[in-house]
Amino acid sequence: MKQEVVLTGITTSGAPHLGNYVGAIRPAIARSRSANVTSLYFLADYHSLIKAQDPKLTHQSSFEIATAWLACGLDPEQAILYRQSDIPEITELTWILTCLTAKGLMNRAHAYKAAVDENQAQNNDPDFGITMGLYSYPILMSADILAFNANKVPVGKDQVQHLEMARDVAQRFNHHYGELFTLPEVEVAETPLLSGLDGRKMSKSYGNTIPLFVPEKKLRKLIMKIKTNSLEPGEAKSTEDSTIFQIYQAFATDDEIAQMRAAFAEGIGWGDAKQKLFELVNAEIGEMRERYEDLSTRPAQIEEIIQAGAAKARTISQPLLEKVRAAVGLHAFGSQK
Amino acid sequence: MKQEVVLTGITTSGAPHLGNYVGAIRPAIARSRSANVTSLYFLADYHSLIKAQDPKLTHQSSFEIATAWLACGLDPEQAILYRQSDIPEITELTWILTCLTAKGLMNRAHAYKAAVDENQAQNNDPDFGITMGLYSYPILMSADILAFNANKVPVGKDQVQHLEMARDVAQRFNHHYGELFTLPEVEVAETPLLSGLDGRKMSKSYGNTIPLFVPEKKLRKLIMKIKTNSLEPGEAKSTEDSTIFQIYQAFATDDEIAQMRAAFAEGIGWGDAKQKLFELVNAEIGEMRERYEDLSTRPAQIEEIIQAGAAKARTISQPLLEKVRAAVGLHAFGSQK
Repeated sequence: MKQEVVLTGITTSGAPHLGNYVGAIRPAIARSRSANVTSLYFLADYHSLIKAQDPKLTHQSSFEIATAWLACGLDPEQAILYRQSDIPEITELTWILTCLTAKGLMNRAHAYKAAVDENQAQNNDPDFGITMGLYSYPILMSADILAFNANKVPVGKDQVQHLEMARDVAQRFNHHYGELFTLPEVEVAETPLLSGLDGRKMSKSYGNTIPLFVPEKKLRKLIMKIKTNSLEPGEAKSTEDSTIFQIYQAFATDDEIAQMRAAFAEGIGWGDAKQKLFELVNAEIGEMRERYEDLSTRPAQIEEIIQAGAAKARTISQPLLEKVRAAVGLHAFGSQK
Repeated sequence: MKQEVVLTGITTSGAPHLGNYVGAIRPAIARSRSANVTSLYFLADYHSLIKAQDPKLTHQSSFEIATAWLACGLDPEQAILYRQSDIPEITELTWILTCLTAKGLMNRAHAYKAAVDENQAQNNDPDFGITMGLYSYPILMSADILAFNANKVPVGKDQVQHLEMARDVAQRFNHHYGELFTLPEVEVAETPLLSGLDGRKMSKSYGNTIPLFVPEKKLRKLIMKIKTNSLEPGEAKSTEDSTIFQIYQAFATDDEIAQMRAAFAEGIGWGDAKQKLFELVNAEIGEMRERYEDLSTRPAQIEEIIQAGAAKARTISQPLLEKVRAAVGLHAFGSQK
């Protein structure tokens, strides 16, 4: 059976919240434990430069994310965790692919088109405020994937188009210079999105998140703030549209879910339901939180892990880029292509 | 006195001709011999990928150019000769600058605008046939320069706009993240362009070149082909618009020029004038040609020189990129910014 290479980029934009944990971290770590998978996880810090231009925030976010994934159980012996900017092959390949990418393809990228539409709606120049980073990041993303010949790339729906662009440029390369790249397969993540404190999708941009690693008391306090309706204890409650029930479901066993559903029908008070939710979440993440707090005080150790990850990742990207370089004609004088 | 850092990119598009020698190679090598100058010369192979997608040609060109510069007397102990694609800091910096470059700036680049105009004249889509390489190469060029904090960049007139773009993005970086980059100064090369066999500017695209290193007999044959008017021996000839006189001038001392001018006035025959031109050129390049032929058989030795050059070049680019990385927030965990 062919080894699967699964690649996941982690946006380094601030500390993760419960939604990130349920939707991305937990399933990714579970998957990394299967035998036939080489799992690559990278801190997408070059991508973060597109929007974030506060160096302290960029650095801090990257550290918090790395620490969180390790605290959640990512085993660096089993999976490969690295920082994008530690892999020179990624930007080298980015340029090589840039020379093969039609400008027309970038014009069709959703994120760019949305920015242009907004400018036009406001009677601005279509490219007003748009950087080359925003415009050309599908090429960087292609290089992220192709530099490791990843064949599975789990992404959200909004990233499907970029994956198609990566396949497109890989095909163009293979056709012109010879078959060096595996065409990556899209895997659209199916985990449901968690709701936030106000009932909308949990998202940093809404300011409605429950951070994954806050002190126990703070976690309880936040859960107590989740918006509910005004039904009194004793009145039957619907599990539909209940943020409490939805988050509970994401952490509970089937039996626990059935019990909570019954409790809702029997009119459990919101305060009691929230207390049960807090206890359940806290039971799952309590140890992780301790590890997180401990690891947070040891940045040099995290750095060591990240460097070891980069070294492992480069055992894939270096020989591949050597072939890529030779294929396009950039190999050493006197060496055979 | 502050050390000048002079940077020259050499397009790796085929073997050099007499025009390249007179206009670029000879003055650059002379300059590299002055004491207060750090001279950096690089084989611009990443740039060559924008147009040339024939790997054998790309590789062969790069080798011929490196060999020619060394044969012409570039002293690798004194100047730093390297291959662009051997310096990972260049593409790393390219991405960092990409995130800082306004797309509107690239829209104004002459080369891109010319391609769009041509498409529009032919009722094509404005971006028809345009790659992201062509569109974004001013950013790569900025990185070429800024990765070494070069303060003098001799360029042709067509490159002045790119230099201004490099200054622009350097200023933007310095303003936002702190003063790390020297603003490069443009130096527009003033050496006259040589005419080719047919009297037009000597250029590969016109197919009118005299290659620098062809065997002696072939050189003579080519010089004999230079287009002249039909004046007979004994009839006075004008030095104006005479390709023969123009090339002669580029190789002769003041005394020799005065003598040739007199010979023209006295009606020297075209055959005699061409013979004198051949002898003069051959006297200057004869030894270089021998070195070129010898070096051409030793690619591994050239590679060694190029690798030593890359190592020297990286003593500049590596520490600078370390600072750049820290400034934007990509430094190691636990390290001070």
